[in-house]
Amino acid sequence: MGRSWWGWGNDEDALAGPELTALTDRVAGLLPGADLTDHEPPKVADLGLRPPRVRPPNSLAGLCSADPADRAAHAHGKAFRDVVRNLRGELAHVPDVIARPRTEQDVVDLLDWCTTAGVAAIPFGGGSSVVGGVEPRFEGPAVTIDLGGLDQVVEIDRTSRAARIQAGVFGPHLEDQLRPHGLSLRHFPQSFEFSTLGGWLATRAGGHYATLHTHIDDLVESTRVITPSGVSESRRLPGSGAGPSPDRLFLGSEGTLGIITEAWMRLQDRPTHRANASLNFADYASAVAATRAVAQSGLHPANCRLLDPAEAFLNAGVTTGGGVLVLGFESADHPVDSALARAVEICQDHGGEVSEGGKNPSAHWRGSFLRMPYQRDALARRSMIVETFETACTWDRFDSLHAAVTTAATDAIRQIAGVGLVTCRFTHVYPDGPAPYFGVYAPGTWGQTVAQWDEIKTAVSDALAANGGTITHHHAVGRDHRPWYDRQRPDPFAAALTAAKSTLDPAGILNPGVLI
Amino acid sequence: MGRSWWGWGNDEDALAGPELTALTDRVAGLLPGADLTDHEPPKVADLGLRPPRVRPPNSLAGLCSADPADRAAHAHGKAFRDVVRNLRGELAHVPDVIARPRTEQDVVDLLDWCTTAGVAAIPFGGGSSVVGGVEPRFEGPAVTIDLGGLDQVVEIDRTSRAARIQAGVFGPHLEDQLRPHGLSLRHFPQSFEFSTLGGWLATRAGGHYATLHTHIDDLVESTRVITPSGVSESRRLPGSGAGPSPDRLFLGSEGTLGIITEAWMRLQDRPTHRANASLNFADYASAVAATRAVAQSGLHPANCRLLDPAEAFLNAGVTTGGGVLVLGFESADHPVDSALARAVEICQDHGGEVSEGGKNPSAHWRGSFLRMPYQRDALARRSMIVETFETACTWDRFDSLHAAVTTAATDAIRQIAGVGLVTCRFTHVYPDGPAPYFGVYAPGTWGQTVAQWDEIKTAVSDALAANGGTITHHHAVGRDHRPWYDRQRPDPFAAALTAAKSTLDPAGILNPGVLI
Repeated sequence: MGRSWWGWGNDEDALAGPELTALTDRVAGLLPGADLTDHEPPKVADLGLRPPRVRPPNSLAGLCSADPADRAAHAHGKAFRDVVRNLRGELAHVPDVIARPRTEQDVVDLLDWCTTAGVAAIPFGGGSSVVGGVEPRFEGPAVTIDLGGLDQVVEIDRTSRAARIQAGVFGPHLEDQLRPHGLSLRHFPQSFEFSTLGGWLATRAGGHYATLHTHIDDLVESTRVITPSGVSESRRLPGSGAGPSPDRLFLGSEGTLGIITEAWMRLQDRPTHRANASLNFADYASAVAATRAVAQSGLHPANCRLLDPAEAFLNAGVTTGGGVLVLGFESADHPVDSALARAVEICQDHGGEVSEGGKNPSAHWRGSFLRMPYQRDALARRSMIVETFETACTWDRFDSLHAAVTTAATDAIRQIAGVGLVTCRFTHVYPDGPAPYFGVYAPGTWGQTVAQWDEIKTAVSDALAANGGTITHHHAVGRDHRPWYDRQRPDPFAAALTAAKSTLDPAGILNPGVLI
Repeated sequence: MGRSWWGWGNDEDALAGPELTALTDRVAGLLPGADLTDHEPPKVADLGLRPPRVRPPNSLAGLCSADPADRAAHAHGKAFRDVVRNLRGELAHVPDVIARPRTEQDVVDLLDWCTTAGVAAIPFGGGSSVVGGVEPRFEGPAVTIDLGGLDQVVEIDRTSRAARIQAGVFGPHLEDQLRPHGLSLRHFPQSFEFSTLGGWLATRAGGHYATLHTHIDDLVESTRVITPSGVSESRRLPGSGAGPSPDRLFLGSEGTLGIITEAWMRLQDRPTHRANASLNFADYASAVAATRAVAQSGLHPANCRLLDPAEAFLNAGVTTGGGVLVLGFESADHPVDSALARAVEICQDHGGEVSEGGKNPSAHWRGSFLRMPYQRDALARRSMIVETFETACTWDRFDSLHAAVTTAATDAIRQIAGVGLVTCRFTHVYPDGPAPYFGVYAPGTWGQTVAQWDEIKTAVSDALAANGGTITHHHAVGRDHRPWYDRQRPDPFAAALTAAKSTLDPAGILNPGVLI
């Protein structure tokens, strides 16, 4: 299979045939008059990439590539603005060298070279960043260190249900290696097929569980990180209170403090008991109240996704006045029917009605979930602005945040595109608040859709900040969220993080422009 | 009520009358020939404390005390070695001034004074540290900043179930303020009555829940910290992935980076459903296997304490070959009988037998739990070595760790005291490992029991380190665990933490000797 250099996933999985026709017909029906002309991606040979400005030393040359297709494929992440810039051949910043370490010593040697030569080093997992996390958006040469060669489950401790895993492994290959042992990491972000363990750790990715262990953070037993100042390896522990957690400094460090090469991860037995239900609501406020009650019940559903009416219609084909709550419970130990029954009862107390027969939104949701990025690409080629952004806030602030963000997005869309749609779903919920995930769909103008999206993004990010939301719940900060992140984090913490960075990466080579 | 300056808790709650007689008789029966002469604490006036070496500026004098009893009561924590040194009048390091801020601005002003004057500042909550965390064990003057005046629940968000709480509040007063709202923090460490929210946060205290949210860390929504370089306040969020967590840097910082003055904490509804059981085991290996299976079941018991046979006999009055597992489930939302039934079934599969009638170890345990420190003090006055230490390790290492630690302790006791007892219970359990808590009981020699304990502590701490345990799961590092902590934490992390400290506390006044 061939990975797409310009868009999501694999070339051969891109929308085509009836699936593509159905989508474009649907959009054309919703947006009469929109210019949906297809714009094909350029050929890499036509990109006119500037020649590499650095050459690796002979000792590392065997790990390194300066192939234009390789460099182009590592220049951007996979956000809407990345894909569109690729489609338009606008690759202003491209790494000079792609290095593929085969051993941890290779990583050490590569960082040594970069430190000595003063070359920026960008750690790269699956490259699925949607926040500009892997883009060398700075002057000066850059080496992108692609960890895909470090992809092994090295050791399994069945007793403690944990495994030592190399950071460059992609989701499916990781699960393939765990399956014979009856174990699973059960970390399934939307990017699962095209992202790596190291990427999940460096960005504090959000995964499978809608409640409880929502971020990968909680699944980490210990980490091993190569910094320019030495190797930081924490002790494998189920829990500890010995000073601030070393792991928590590197989790979310987005490649600025070191390169994670291995981690001991906590695993799960594969579930044998499952129970699912979907509930339709007549009004959104009741749906939110029901979701909050479930989140505060201590039932810990594995899935608890509230789709607003637009989201439910677009992605699950269900028409409701107030949206659909998709609930799922699972266990490897005991039946979960009574937990589901109680959650359903809570929802019914808030006016929810169990969705009977017809399309199962739960199953339908899962299928469309993994196709979404491919649909996004098909629409991006046709001048559509299609992007998502996500946050989290406490429950007391959700109504005002939701209203403000929706208004900000809608106003921006109206000015830019005239018409469009803003949707909201919860990807994760906590006892003290939800993690809302917004979608924006609007007809743009070819050649301007990046600037148009950036304008919308500024409006919604300002609204998030003004209403107590985080600039990111699980997409990380990267370069795109930086202005709002700088306002969000406490100044003394920023100073402490900068001091830590200066100590661990004195030459400042690691992922410049991100976080610090 | 009068707080004891030398020992645990309140003077009037110390063991006396029949309770004292019963304990000493029991010990005398177990240790015939041991010298159990009672040694009364000295009077503060006889301690001969050196006069304060610093005086606060006039603007702060109203917050400050140089009263000898006050200074003596703030000199040590409440470890065995602290209590015995108090009993012997050995107060080598006593704070010069006790400051009691009434407002956050007072905290700022006190840190400004200490920074300018180059005086060490020791943050002090309840003073229940058992690791030397509040002792000015260094040369040079010290101001102890006692936060007891900042004890209010300032704001409650019932919708999100969270409250903004001042750091100096003690456990009971905190719960008193939450009870009218039907809410609870449900953080009940053994020190609950005599420790504060700020202390729990600064030391990553372990609380009520034996599984899942074991440390206070998970209950934190945001923190407000006064550092010498400014105020660090994180945004209230139910979850976030925006860079490394600012809160996690301050959690466990043990007063070295700043003084926590407030936190937004996640609260619980008060439980209305409860179910408890105790299971007796014929052999310890089966009991451990059963506990592991329960920990890995996803049932999340609130209580899951495995007492080894000695612990079960001493503290629950139950004779078994393999120990007792105390299980408890609770919920504010739904019945928990089926969860308990499944946990019991798991235990029965491992040979556990439900304890019927007679003493209920679960209830008995709870009662004796809070009396333990008072019993410790009564025995410390009678030359007994009575101390605990705790750790956590992965399940695969537990057998060897348990054997090595027990052997190390037993050998040390044999050389020092001839006879003695080593017990073990689990305070918390995780899917990937237990948090074992050991007790040591041995007859010592008056005037030497601190040195004798220190010798035992060195032996067991070395054994912990050699067998993959953490030097502390929930007691913090303080000054007593420092040598093993330094070996445990990764060097690059130590360097990063030191750099953060230099930035936040450039004069190095905050709790010198702890962590950094």
